[in-house]
Amino acid sequence: MYLGGLCFITDRKACGLTCEEITLTVMRAGVQWVQYREKDKSRREIYEVALRLRRLTRDFNATFIVNDHADIALSVDADGVHLGQEDLPIKEARKIMGREKIIGISTHSLEQAIEAEAEGADYIGFGPIFCTTTKDAGEPKGVEEMMEIKRQIRIPVVAIGGISLGNLQSVLDAGADAVAVATGILSGDNIYENAKGFLNSINSSNSIMRGRL
Amino acid sequence: MYLGGLCFITDRKACGLTCEEITLTVMRAGVQWVQYREKDKSRREIYEVALRLRRLTRDFNATFIVNDHADIALSVDADGVHLGQEDLPIKEARKIMGREKIIGISTHSLEQAIEAEAEGADYIGFGPIFCTTTKDAGEPKGVEEMMEIKRQIRIPVVAIGGISLGNLQSVLDAGADAVAVATGILSGDNIYENAKGFLNSINSSNSIMRGRL
Repeated sequence: MYLGGLCFITDRKACGLTCEEITLTVMRAGVQWVQYREKDKSRREIYEVALRLRRLTRDFNATFIVNDHADIALSVDADGVHLGQEDLPIKEARKIMGREKIIGISTHSLEQAIEAEAEGADYIGFGPIFCTTTKDAGEPKGVEEMMEIKRQIRIPVVAIGGISLGNLQSVLDAGADAVAVATGILSGDNIYENAKGFLNSINSSNSIMRGRL
Repeated sequence: MYLGGLCFITDRKACGLTCEEITLTVMRAGVQWVQYREKDKSRREIYEVALRLRRLTRDFNATFIVNDHADIALSVDADGVHLGQEDLPIKEARKIMGREKIIGISTHSLEQAIEAEAEGADYIGFGPIFCTTTKDAGEPKGVEEMMEIKRQIRIPVVAIGGISLGNLQSVLDAGADAVAVATGILSGDNIYENAKGFLNSINSSNSIMRGRL
């Protein structure tokens, strides 16, 4: 599954639009990988939005990942689930999701990254690389620890946290297989152009593997 | 599956004990049906407690239901999941859980009860019957609406909300197939005797069907 080096993470609080609207816009700009992240709605509401996003992403042949909820990911037939360290363990999610679905997990240290690979994650998120306002994500890690992780594990490493058009190149140069971006695309007044900007930089970079899962 | 007319709902806030401790105590008193409800922990923590409760309940051959989380219910091999109106729709939970697992749902009106049966619920909770401090459950319904629900649906109706040894008989007389109790058992200074008291009243009542799912 080709993921295109850019994972767009929905964040309706970063702009005045719905998750459906922002997802449509970034897919029109060429984004092929969408993660639906929602912390403040009921499971029923998350299910309903996820169902709509699944339909939209399917129209664009884009990969669709649901954050946190393996059951919701399964019921809307998402391509996978993205877990946090405080979610269901990877092995348990795998039992429920089956071998074909993508399971990613957020990691914040080399130790967690190695453990994630050992437990069967398809990719890891690693960060926050830079300061981020999206969520309370802890101290920025910079790129050095990510470079060490890249040396020690084989699954794709998706850099996350405060990545902007301005600092993107440094993350690509450090060896990230992909970057995950919410605010970096949703801030400013042109989401479409922001997404285009990210994709152009990523596609012209030789340093990125553009993770194929 | 014989459920015994009494569903014990864990509530570690109602007493100073862990869910494991209170579950063991009520099972020693004879409770055969435990629902693990936890609103304030991470999914990982809920999974870990659920795993331990699954082992304990299996030792007592008791039915074990996980509140809210179909994925966690599946991963610990619970007997089923109990959903709220704001959780995954019953039909979706059924797709994930399969036909053998029990799916119950909280309802608060005749309309919701009829819908739950139509969507394939194995039982409904109905309430709050009386005032309850366990959660913000809305206005007490009394038993009249439950009696109307009993006339209109065939699946078991589990009365919930503020049920105590003092008012239990009125709920049984009104036709409840079972009662779900947290505070009523956990308050006071003898959980074991409280549970015994509920079971004795239920078992000596002719009015209760003691829901067999």
